[in-house]
Amino acid sequence: MNQPLSDPKLHGDLFSEHCPSREVLKHVTSRWGVLLLVALGEGACRFSELRRKVGGISERMLAQTLQWLEQDGFVQRIARQAAPPHVEYRLTPLGKEISQRVKEVADWIERNLDGVLAAKGVQAA
Amino acid sequence: MNQPLSDPKLHGDLFSEHCPSREVLKHVTSRWGVLLLVALGEGACRFSELRRKVGGISERMLAQTLQWLEQDGFVQRIARQAAPPHVEYRLTPLGKEISQRVKEVADWIERNLDGVLAAKGVQAA
Repeated sequence: MNQPLSDPKLHGDLFSEHCPSREVLKHVTSRWGVLLLVALGEGACRFSELRRKVGGISERMLAQTLQWLEQDGFVQRIARQAAPPHVEYRLTPLGKEISQRVKEVADWIERNLDGVLAAKGVQAA
Repeated sequence: MNQPLSDPKLHGDLFSEHCPSREVLKHVTSRWGVLLLVALGEGACRFSELRRKVGGISERMLAQTLQWLEQDGFVQRIARQAAPPHVEYRLTPLGKEISQRVKEVADWIERNLDGVLAAKGVQAA
Protein backbone atom coordinates (compact mmCIF):
# COMPACT_ATOMS: atom_id res chain seq x y z
CA MET A 1 0.00 0.00 0.00
CA ASN A 2 1.64 3.18 -1.16
CA GLN A 3 -0.88 5.92 -0.37
CA PRO A 4 -2.83 7.00 2.71
CA LEU A 5 -6.38 5.61 2.91
CA SER A 6 -7.88 8.98 1.98
CA ASP A 7 -6.20 8.87 -1.44
CA PRO A 8 -8.78 7.83 -4.05
CA LYS A 9 -6.01 6.12 -6.04
CA LEU A 10 -5.23 3.68 -3.22
CA HIS A 11 -3.71 0.62 -4.86
CA GLY A 12 -2.92 -2.56 -2.97
CA ASP A 13 0.37 -4.44 -3.16
CA LEU A 14 -0.10 -8.13 -2.48
CA PHE A 15 3.66 -8.75 -2.36
CA SER A 16 3.86 -6.47 0.64
CA GLU A 17 3.41 -8.35 3.90
CA HIS A 18 1.33 -5.76 5.72
CA CYS A 19 -0.89 -4.52 2.89
CA PRO A 20 -4.59 -4.94 3.78
CA SER A 21 -5.12 -6.51 0.35
CA ARG A 22 -3.60 -9.69 1.83
CA GLU A 23 -6.62 -10.12 4.09
CA VAL A 24 -9.03 -9.70 1.17
CA LEU A 25 -7.05 -12.25 -0.85
CA LYS A 26 -7.21 -14.63 2.09
CA HIS A 27 -11.01 -14.45 2.24
CA VAL A 28 -11.54 -14.64 -1.53
CA THR A 29 -9.17 -17.58 -2.02
CA SER A 30 -10.01 -19.41 1.19
CA ARG A 31 -11.00 -23.04 0.83
CA TRP A 32 -14.71 -22.21 0.81
CA GLY A 33 -14.54 -18.58 -0.34
CA VAL A 34 -13.77 -19.57 -3.93
CA LEU A 35 -16.60 -22.09 -4.07
CA LEU A 36 -19.15 -19.75 -2.46
CA LEU A 37 -18.26 -16.91 -4.84
CA VAL A 38 -18.72 -19.29 -7.79
CA ALA A 39 -21.99 -20.70 -6.38
CA LEU A 40 -23.42 -17.22 -5.74
CA GLY A 41 -22.37 -16.18 -9.25
CA GLU A 42 -25.23 -18.38 -10.46
CA GLY A 43 -27.77 -16.36 -8.45
CA ALA A 44 -29.01 -15.61 -4.93
CA CYS A 45 -29.13 -18.62 -2.60
CA ARG A 46 -30.44 -19.55 0.80
CA PHE A 47 -28.07 -20.85 3.43
CA SER A 48 -29.43 -24.39 3.06
CA GLU A 49 -29.04 -24.26 -0.74
CA LEU A 50 -25.41 -23.20 -0.42
CA ARG A 51 -24.85 -25.96 2.12
CA ARG A 52 -26.18 -28.55 -0.35
CA LYS A 53 -24.39 -27.10 -3.37
CA VAL A 54 -20.88 -26.88 -1.93
CA GLY A 55 -20.01 -30.48 -1.08
CA GLY A 56 -18.33 -30.99 2.28
CA ILE A 57 -18.83 -27.52 3.78
CA SER A 58 -19.90 -27.47 7.43
CA GLU A 59 -22.54 -25.10 8.79
CA ARG A 60 -19.86 -23.39 10.81
CA MET A 61 -17.52 -22.77 7.88
CA LEU A 62 -20.39 -21.69 5.63
CA ALA A 63 -21.50 -19.11 8.23
CA GLN A 64 -17.90 -17.96 8.82
CA THR A 65 -17.06 -17.59 5.13
CA LEU A 66 -20.32 -15.79 4.33
CA GLN A 67 -19.52 -13.39 7.16
CA TRP A 68 -16.05 -12.67 5.74
CA LEU A 69 -17.47 -12.09 2.27
CA GLU A 70 -20.19 -9.85 3.71
CA GLN A 71 -17.66 -7.78 5.66
CA ASP A 72 -15.54 -7.34 2.52
CA GLY A 73 -18.61 -6.05 0.67
CA PHE A 74 -18.87 -9.01 -1.73
CA VAL A 75 -22.04 -10.62 -0.37
CA GLN A 76 -25.31 -9.12 0.82
CA ARG A 77 -27.69 -10.78 3.26
CA ILE A 78 -31.29 -10.15 2.27
CA ALA A 79 -34.30 -10.85 4.51
CA ARG A 80 -37.12 -11.86 2.13
CA GLN A 81 -40.68 -11.16 3.22
CA ALA A 82 -41.99 -14.13 1.25
CA ALA A 83 -44.03 -16.89 2.95
CA PRO A 84 -42.30 -18.28 4.86
CA PRO A 85 -39.89 -15.37 5.48
CA HIS A 86 -36.29 -16.38 4.81
CA VAL A 87 -32.81 -15.06 4.32
CA GLU A 88 -30.99 -15.07 0.99
CA TYR A 89 -27.39 -14.33 0.16
CA ARG A 90 -26.47 -12.57 -3.04
CA LEU A 91 -23.45 -10.94 -4.63
CA THR A 92 -23.05 -7.18 -4.52
CA PRO A 93 -21.76 -5.41 -7.66
CA LEU A 94 -18.20 -5.72 -6.21
CA GLY A 95 -18.90 -9.38 -5.47
CA LYS A 96 -19.99 -10.01 -9.06
CA GLU A 97 -16.72 -8.60 -10.35
CA ILE A 98 -14.51 -10.75 -8.14
CA SER A 99 -16.77 -13.78 -8.62
CA GLN A 100 -16.26 -13.66 -12.39
CA ARG A 101 -12.48 -13.65 -12.00
CA VAL A 102 -12.48 -16.39 -9.39
CA LYS A 103 -14.74 -18.45 -11.66
CA GLU A 104 -12.13 -18.21 -14.44
CA VAL A 105 -9.62 -19.90 -12.12
CA ALA A 106 -12.14 -22.54 -11.01
CA ASP A 107 -13.31 -23.26 -14.56
CA TRP A 108 -9.75 -23.60 -15.80
CA ILE A 109 -8.96 -26.16 -13.09
CA GLU A 110 -12.10 -28.17 -13.87
CA ARG A 111 -11.42 -28.10 -17.61
CA ASN A 112 -7.73 -28.95 -17.30
CA LEU A 113 -7.90 -31.53 -14.54
CA ASP A 114 -6.77 -34.28 -16.88
CA GLY A 115 -3.65 -32.31 -17.84
CA VAL A 116 -2.79 -31.68 -14.21
CA LEU A 117 -3.35 -35.31 -13.21
CA ALA A 118 -1.16 -36.36 -16.15
CA ALA A 119 1.56 -33.99 -14.91
CA LYS A 120 1.30 -35.55 -11.45
CA GLY A 121 1.71 -39.00 -13.06
CA VAL A 122 4.90 -37.90 -14.84
CA GLN A 123 6.28 -36.55 -11.56
CA ALA A 124 5.49 -39.78 -9.72
CA ALA A 125 7.07 -41.98 -12.43
CA MET B 1 -15.53 -36.00 -11.50
CA ASN B 2 -17.90 -37.71 -13.87
CA GLN B 3 -15.65 -39.90 -16.00
CA PRO B 4 -12.93 -42.48 -15.34
CA LEU B 5 -9.38 -41.17 -15.46
CA SER B 6 -8.76 -42.79 -18.84
CA ASP B 7 -11.47 -40.64 -20.47
CA PRO B 8 -9.79 -37.78 -22.38
CA LYS B 9 -12.82 -35.58 -21.62
CA LEU B 10 -12.26 -35.83 -17.87
CA HIS B 11 -13.82 -32.72 -16.36
CA GLY B 12 -13.49 -31.80 -12.70
CA ASP B 13 -16.35 -30.74 -10.46
CA LEU B 14 -15.20 -28.45 -7.69
CA PHE B 15 -18.57 -28.61 -5.92
CA SER B 16 -18.05 -32.33 -5.41
CA GLU B 17 -16.28 -33.10 -2.14
CA HIS B 18 -14.08 -35.92 -3.40
CA CYS B 19 -13.12 -34.59 -6.84
CA PRO B 20 -9.32 -34.38 -7.22
CA SER B 21 -9.77 -30.85 -8.60
CA ARG B 22 -10.27 -29.75 -4.98
CA GLU B 23 -6.63 -30.55 -4.22
CA VAL B 24 -5.43 -28.54 -7.24
CA LEU B 25 -7.60 -25.60 -6.17
CA LYS B 26 -6.15 -25.85 -2.68
CA HIS B 27 -2.58 -25.55 -3.99
CA VAL B 28 -3.32 -22.79 -6.51
CA THR B 29 -5.30 -20.65 -4.06
CA SER B 30 -3.18 -21.38 -1.01
CA ARG B 31 -1.88 -18.37 0.88
CA TRP B 32 1.45 -18.46 -0.96
CA GLY B 33 0.40 -20.34 -4.09
CA VAL B 34 -1.39 -17.29 -5.51
CA LEU B 35 1.57 -14.98 -4.87
CA LEU B 36 4.16 -17.42 -6.25
CA LEU B 37 2.13 -17.99 -9.42
CA VAL B 38 1.90 -14.23 -9.90
CA ALA B 39 5.62 -13.72 -9.13
CA LEU B 40 6.70 -16.47 -11.54
CA GLY B 41 4.38 -15.01 -14.19
CA GLU B 42 6.96 -12.21 -14.47
CA GLY B 43 9.72 -14.69 -15.38
CA ALA B 44 11.94 -17.45 -13.99
CA CYS B 45 13.26 -16.83 -10.47
CA ARG B 46 15.74 -18.26 -8.03
CA PHE B 47 14.59 -19.41 -4.61
CA SER B 48 16.21 -16.41 -2.96
CA GLU B 49 14.58 -13.99 -5.41
CA LEU B 50 11.15 -15.45 -4.68
CA ARG B 51 11.85 -15.24 -0.97
CA ARG B 52 12.61 -11.51 -1.30
CA LYS B 53 9.74 -10.77 -3.67
CA VAL B 54 6.93 -12.37 -1.68
CA GLY B 55 6.90 -10.47 1.60
CA GLY B 56 6.54 -12.58 4.72
CA ILE B 57 7.03 -16.03 3.20
CA SER B 58 9.24 -18.39 5.24
CA GLU B 59 11.82 -20.68 3.62
CA ARG B 60 9.78 -23.65 4.70
CA MET B 61 6.52 -22.44 3.16
CA LEU B 62 8.29 -21.32 -0.02
CA ALA B 63 9.83 -24.79 -0.44
CA GLN B 64 6.53 -26.51 0.39
CA THR B 65 4.46 -24.42 -2.00
CA LEU B 66 6.98 -24.73 -4.83
CA GLN B 67 6.86 -28.49 -4.34
CA TRP B 68 3.04 -28.53 -4.56
CA LEU B 69 3.12 -26.42 -7.72
CA GLU B 70 5.83 -28.64 -9.20
CA GLN B 71 3.84 -31.80 -8.47
CA ASP B 72 0.75 -30.29 -10.11
CA GLY B 73 2.82 -29.56 -13.23
CA PHE B 74 2.67 -25.76 -12.90
CA VAL B 75 6.30 -25.08 -12.01
CA GLN B 76 9.54 -26.53 -13.31
CA ARG B 77 12.79 -26.64 -11.38
CA ILE B 78 15.74 -25.95 -13.67
CA ALA B 79 19.37 -26.55 -12.73
CA ARG B 80 21.35 -23.84 -14.56
CA GLN B 81 24.93 -24.63 -15.50
CA ALA B 82 25.93 -20.97 -15.25
CA ALA B 83 28.77 -19.85 -12.99
CA PRO B 84 27.99 -20.37 -10.19
CA PRO B 85 25.54 -23.21 -10.93
CA HIS B 86 22.12 -22.49 -9.49
CA VAL B 87 18.51 -23.57 -9.53
CA GLU B 88 15.71 -21.58 -11.11
CA TYR B 89 11.97 -22.01 -10.95
CA ARG B 90 9.80 -21.25 -13.93
CA LEU B 91 6.22 -21.76 -15.04
CA THR B 92 5.37 -24.63 -17.38
CA PRO B 93 2.87 -23.98 -20.22
CA LEU B 94 0.08 -25.22 -17.86
CA GLY B 95 1.49 -22.98 -15.14
CA LYS B 96 1.40 -19.94 -17.44
CA GLU B 97 -2.29 -20.54 -18.14
CA ILE B 98 -3.31 -20.77 -14.50
CA SER B 99 -0.95 -17.94 -13.52
CA GLN B 100 -2.71 -15.56 -15.92
CA ARG B 101 -6.09 -16.35 -14.40
CA VAL B 102 -4.83 -16.11 -10.83
CA LYS B 103 -3.21 -12.77 -11.69
CA GLU B 104 -6.62 -11.43 -12.81
CA VAL B 105 -7.94 -12.11 -9.30
CA ALA B 106 -4.87 -10.61 -7.63
CA ASP B 107 -4.87 -7.52 -9.88
CA TRP B 108 -8.56 -6.93 -9.25
CA ILE B 109 -8.03 -7.00 -5.49
CA GLU B 110 -5.10 -4.59 -5.70
CA ARG B 111 -7.01 -2.21 -8.00
CA ASN B 112 -10.22 -2.33 -5.96
CA LEU B 113 -8.77 -2.27 -2.47
CA ASP B 114 -10.26 1.15 -1.77
CA GLY B 115 -13.74 -0.08 -2.68
CA VAL B 116 -13.40 -3.10 -0.43
CA LEU B 117 -12.06 -1.04 2.47
CA ALA B 118 -14.95 1.38 1.99
CA ALA B 119 -17.39 -1.55 2.13
CA LYS B 120 -15.77 -2.69 5.38
CA GLY B 121 -16.16 0.84 6.74
CA VAL B 122 -19.87 0.82 5.99
CA GLN B 123 -20.21 -2.53 7.75
CA ALA B 124 -18.35 -1.26 10.78
CA ALA B 125 -20.44 1.94 11.00
